[in-house]
Amino acid sequence: MNAPDKTMVDASADCLRFLAADAVQQANSGHPGAPMGMADMADVLWRRHLRHNPADPKWLNRDRFVLSNGHASMLLYGLLHLTGYDVAVEDIKQFRQLHARTPGHPEVGITPGVETTTGPLGQGLANAVGMALAEKMLAAAFNRPGHDVIDHRTYVFVGDGCLMEGISHEVCSLAGTLGLGKLVVFYDDNGISIDGDVKGWFTDDTPQRFAAYGWNVIAAVDGHDADALDRAIFDACAQSSLQHSRPTLICCKTVIGKGAPTKAGGHDVHGAPLGVDEITAMRLARQWTAAPFEIPPHIAAAWDAREAGRARQTAWDQTFASYRAAYPALALELERRSAGTLPTVLSEQFAQLLRQPGELHNKVATRKASQIVLEHISAALPEFFGGSADLTGSNLTNVKASVRIQANGSGNYLSYGVREFGMAAMMNGIALHGGFIPFGGTFLTFSDYSRNAIRMAALMKQRVIHVLTHDSIGLGEDGPTHQPVEHMASLRLIPNNRLWRPCDGVETAVAWQAALQRHDGPTCLVLSRQALAPFDRTAQQIDAIALGGYVLADAPQAPALPHIVLIATGSEVEIAVAAAHQLALENVSARVVSMPCVETFYAQSTAYRDAVLPPGVPRVSVEAGVTWFWRAVVGEHGIAVGLDSFGESAPAEQLYAHFGITAAHVATCALTVVKGV
Amino acid sequence: MNAPDKTMVDASADCLRFLAADAVQQANSGHPGAPMGMADMADVLWRRHLRHNPADPKWLNRDRFVLSNGHASMLLYGLLHLTGYDVAVEDIKQFRQLHARTPGHPEVGITPGVETTTGPLGQGLANAVGMALAEKMLAAAFNRPGHDVIDHRTYVFVGDGCLMEGISHEVCSLAGTLGLGKLVVFYDDNGISIDGDVKGWFTDDTPQRFAAYGWNVIAAVDGHDADALDRAIFDACAQSSLQHSRPTLICCKTVIGKGAPTKAGGHDVHGAPLGVDEITAMRLARQWTAAPFEIPPHIAAAWDAREAGRARQTAWDQTFASYRAAYPALALELERRSAGTLPTVLSEQFAQLLRQPGELHNKVATRKASQIVLEHISAALPEFFGGSADLTGSNLTNVKASVRIQANGSGNYLSYGVREFGMAAMMNGIALHGGFIPFGGTFLTFSDYSRNAIRMAALMKQRVIHVLTHDSIGLGEDGPTHQPVEHMASLRLIPNNRLWRPCDGVETAVAWQAALQRHDGPTCLVLSRQALAPFDRTAQQIDAIALGGYVLADAPQAPALPHIVLIATGSEVEIAVAAAHQLALENVSARVVSMPCVETFYAQSTAYRDAVLPPGVPRVSVEAGVTWFWRAVVGEHGIAVGLDSFGESAPAEQLYAHFGITAAHVATCALTVVKGV
Repeated sequence: MNAPDKTMVDASADCLRFLAADAVQQANSGHPGAPMGMADMADVLWRRHLRHNPADPKWLNRDRFVLSNGHASMLLYGLLHLTGYDVAVEDIKQFRQLHARTPGHPEVGITPGVETTTGPLGQGLANAVGMALAEKMLAAAFNRPGHDVIDHRTYVFVGDGCLMEGISHEVCSLAGTLGLGKLVVFYDDNGISIDGDVKGWFTDDTPQRFAAYGWNVIAAVDGHDADALDRAIFDACAQSSLQHSRPTLICCKTVIGKGAPTKAGGHDVHGAPLGVDEITAMRLARQWTAAPFEIPPHIAAAWDAREAGRARQTAWDQTFASYRAAYPALALELERRSAGTLPTVLSEQFAQLLRQPGELHNKVATRKASQIVLEHISAALPEFFGGSADLTGSNLTNVKASVRIQANGSGNYLSYGVREFGMAAMMNGIALHGGFIPFGGTFLTFSDYSRNAIRMAALMKQRVIHVLTHDSIGLGEDGPTHQPVEHMASLRLIPNNRLWRPCDGVETAVAWQAALQRHDGPTCLVLSRQALAPFDRTAQQIDAIALGGYVLADAPQAPALPHIVLIATGSEVEIAVAAAHQLALENVSARVVSMPCVETFYAQSTAYRDAVLPPGVPRVSVEAGVTWFWRAVVGEHGIAVGLDSFGESAPAEQLYAHFGITAAHVATCALTVVKGV
Repeated sequence: MNAPDKTMVDASADCLRFLAADAVQQANSGHPGAPMGMADMADVLWRRHLRHNPADPKWLNRDRFVLSNGHASMLLYGLLHLTGYDVAVEDIKQFRQLHARTPGHPEVGITPGVETTTGPLGQGLANAVGMALAEKMLAAAFNRPGHDVIDHRTYVFVGDGCLMEGISHEVCSLAGTLGLGKLVVFYDDNGISIDGDVKGWFTDDTPQRFAAYGWNVIAAVDGHDADALDRAIFDACAQSSLQHSRPTLICCKTVIGKGAPTKAGGHDVHGAPLGVDEITAMRLARQWTAAPFEIPPHIAAAWDAREAGRARQTAWDQTFASYRAAYPALALELERRSAGTLPTVLSEQFAQLLRQPGELHNKVATRKASQIVLEHISAALPEFFGGSADLTGSNLTNVKASVRIQANGSGNYLSYGVREFGMAAMMNGIALHGGFIPFGGTFLTFSDYSRNAIRMAALMKQRVIHVLTHDSIGLGEDGPTHQPVEHMASLRLIPNNRLWRPCDGVETAVAWQAALQRHDGPTCLVLSRQALAPFDRTAQQIDAIALGGYVLADAPQAPALPHIVLIATGSEVEIAVAAAHQLALENVSARVVSMPCVETFYAQSTAYRDAVLPPGVPRVSVEAGVTWFWRAVVGEHGIAVGLDSFGESAPAEQLYAHFGITAAHVATCALTVVKGV
């Protein structure tokens, strides 16, 4: 690292400030204050410490940088542009315009060098905790003496907003317990949030709070003093050489909008353009003569990280080559896992599980079926990383070979504690880091707590698997607080999310396979507490499960078209089948369609959908949840059986009877519909 | 308070233990461990300190007791039964049975003496913070020198789970800042959560953490030592006499399942019956000869709080009588506010606002219209308590007369900080306490963070108003993280929630009126960032808005039935109206139905609904969100215009064009549908 040149630091940081101020002004939209206030922090970190290679934003062993206060996006775009990523000045000029590489908030997959999508406060920090954990676990799994192929840090910028959010408590508490010594968090302590001076609503002693979490806290750093920042980063980095290393919080006292002559330090600078006059005055005050978006050559040179990046990655390539020579199988496996490719044996394992007799084909709860699947496939899937938000014995997310994360990073299971949101957002970070397929359990009703992180996984197209058990009033006595009623329907509404609600062991296995094979988004596996009867299926039917919906049963001697189609999911499929039997006694021919994944079914061809749900044949649906969702399936003349109120506390069977989710009621509805046609 | 009798304390606490163990055993379901571990804490608090009156669970000035770890419900039912509430031993025997007064988790409105519904961890604590704030504000508004008519404490029991949850950070941080000196939290520090010994996932120094929030922390109390608990409570209560008082955390070291001879201290005792053998052994070990559900008379006498409660309330009645004599108007007003009755002048104020020309009838964003409504009605509604999760200037939840909460509890507005979930759950507590109608703002997309608290308000039937602005891609450049797409549909699915999405100023006023008049549940007001054109309406049309959906415009010289009905909400109503004009040029007669509250519309009579949406007339809907929800409205032959993907970062007008949410596209869809019939 070069010795600091004070003038250059000021000028190079000012370069970030002007890029932010000018881009926000040109877009007439955005947040200049935070980028300007954090410019010095970014300058010192990115020019002196960050180990990255702008030419290869996907380099496996790069340091991760997360801008948790994502509204400061122009800071990150400026950094990427200046250090040499494929973010041109033309991209900066297109800040916040349609299809630009520089959207309002940083989005992974849109901009090279953006590690995670941020904006919803606190979640970037949680992603970073997940990344740091993934690094530690991957290092434990693959590094060998003299071969540290995985060895990088995770740096995060957070603001007051991130630290007020509850999720910051969940993940920072856990990061302390896990001893994530390569996690370095910079707190942009500027004392201002949107409502004004934070003293009115945020008076935590933050250093003390993080000390209580077991962190290494570096308090009271002048966030505009490059040397002080530099020393703090060295101090933070020294943690990783300790036996019991701790994550580091660097508390940086900063001035929001630093550099703006009249607006710095106030909340006006937070979320609106500075205005032409203020920017002109700032140019004068900072002696900045370059035009908007023009980078003075000596400053461009000082920022350019391409050569250093190339050298870093070349050195690592040599490390990896020698690792490959010593451990060829491990090297191949690391490459496979980093690429996110499933082991080839997995498909055969699933086929075997579906074929062979065994527990999966018994009457078991689908949460138990899920555990049977896990038991069967986990050995073949070392990248599988399980966990639960303190409901392991209820979610059944563990297997015999589950080993809790150890101090050295070995293990394959994490008890996240009662931290649903933190778990979900950490899983996003683990998936983003690469090398793991995370899955985690909680009760379906508490998906409410983690909902926005599920949404973020869908937006970021990350393979994260949520095991959501106790999926209906079928959980019984715990009552309405624990009985999800609207959750299935509302999770299905999140774009690019997939929800599977299997009806027995076989469907559960197919749901798991679909979740694993899905490379571009999250899956929610919605599972019963109570035991469910297994169904017989032909090989063709088993294949059809993956299509999301299929004909489970037609009446014997059925006419070419049934009189009615009964559509059900999960624990209600056996109710639909029983109703079909009752209808047969009334000479009504009922088809039963099991639809474990509505979204997947509706993504099939019209021909297939029409074959399963023949147009013109009336429909009745049954699912122990709100009916509005199903009205779109059954149409105006159909009936959706379910419940549109909250549940009750009582044994499960009594609740099904109480709410009329019974074969008799479904059959009655079917008769009504058939007669009405 | 009586001097403690050690033997009696042990026996009276054991009485709680046996009630819990026997009831869980009889139900064959439930959580015995926490009630048994907290029995001594409960004994000391309830028999020596709690100021309540079992005969009047709604006594205005009672101390509030919140069991945040709601799975310990049998502790609370035992306390209510023993102290003399209308919870009979027969009710205890019906623990967790259908329609019992003793559901699996405590539910307000079901059991006399239950102050809030708990179970989803952390939220009871947040409710309690809201209650303590309400007490402080109500005292500031109504007490007069020598007349402390409002003067009570809020006590909370929390477990490890509550303190791991992020919401505990949000609300405890804020409680510290607000100086809620009458809030006393007991931490049941038993070191066990469902996954086992918490050391693996929860190693916070909790006293240090709460000290960082500015709390009075009483660390290391033996939770089974009655005298130590007693001293701690006295210490906590002394806070309220200080000028700068602080909330108190009493850290009680306890043994989960205390009393169970072999299972105490382990996690097996958490969530399953102890078993007959263990309970028998416990009877022997504790020398407890009473049969299940039998209360020895001397213990019943020791617990009976009816006489003391009556005396307490009688004394307070005298206080209130002298207050009424001195301040008759204030006394009346306190009674009105406590009853939750709206001021009679309010209806006239709304009528006036709708009638008179003014800003409300201009082209304004509905968030701005909302602020205009607030400005107009706030003076008449002193119980109105506003706030925002750090987005005041964006949500426009403030008015000229807004005064931030002061140290003494005066004021009518709270900047909650960036704490959406905490805000929502605190608002539930404020509503439960009584005397206030809370409303709070955030962006609609962040309703994901607060979602379970909105659900809890719906379950608890509480009048809480959520102001959710920036309601669609119409917010523009902030991009997909900030653009709600599925949120409107998914909030409508929560039972007993009401979502209003007004299309202009007049509808915004009616939505506010509906939210205020609604006594039995929450309302989400979903408002635009961008300005929306106002519509002309007849008086009859204005009246019809409150029905949730109505005919906004029929084509001139329309036939008896229109050719098509266009249904829209909020910012898309003007698109539907423009589409209707385009269709008129094609000789297609289109009716425009504005449907600001779908749930309210579908609660109307069939006759009314059919008059608005004539059966047989095809339908096209338009709402800038996921279309699945609307397919239930438009039917199989209709088209729902919206977007089923995430949004993009760009100026709003470009986004509407990009996603095809335009008059031209709606008109094209309408023509397709009309031709298809």
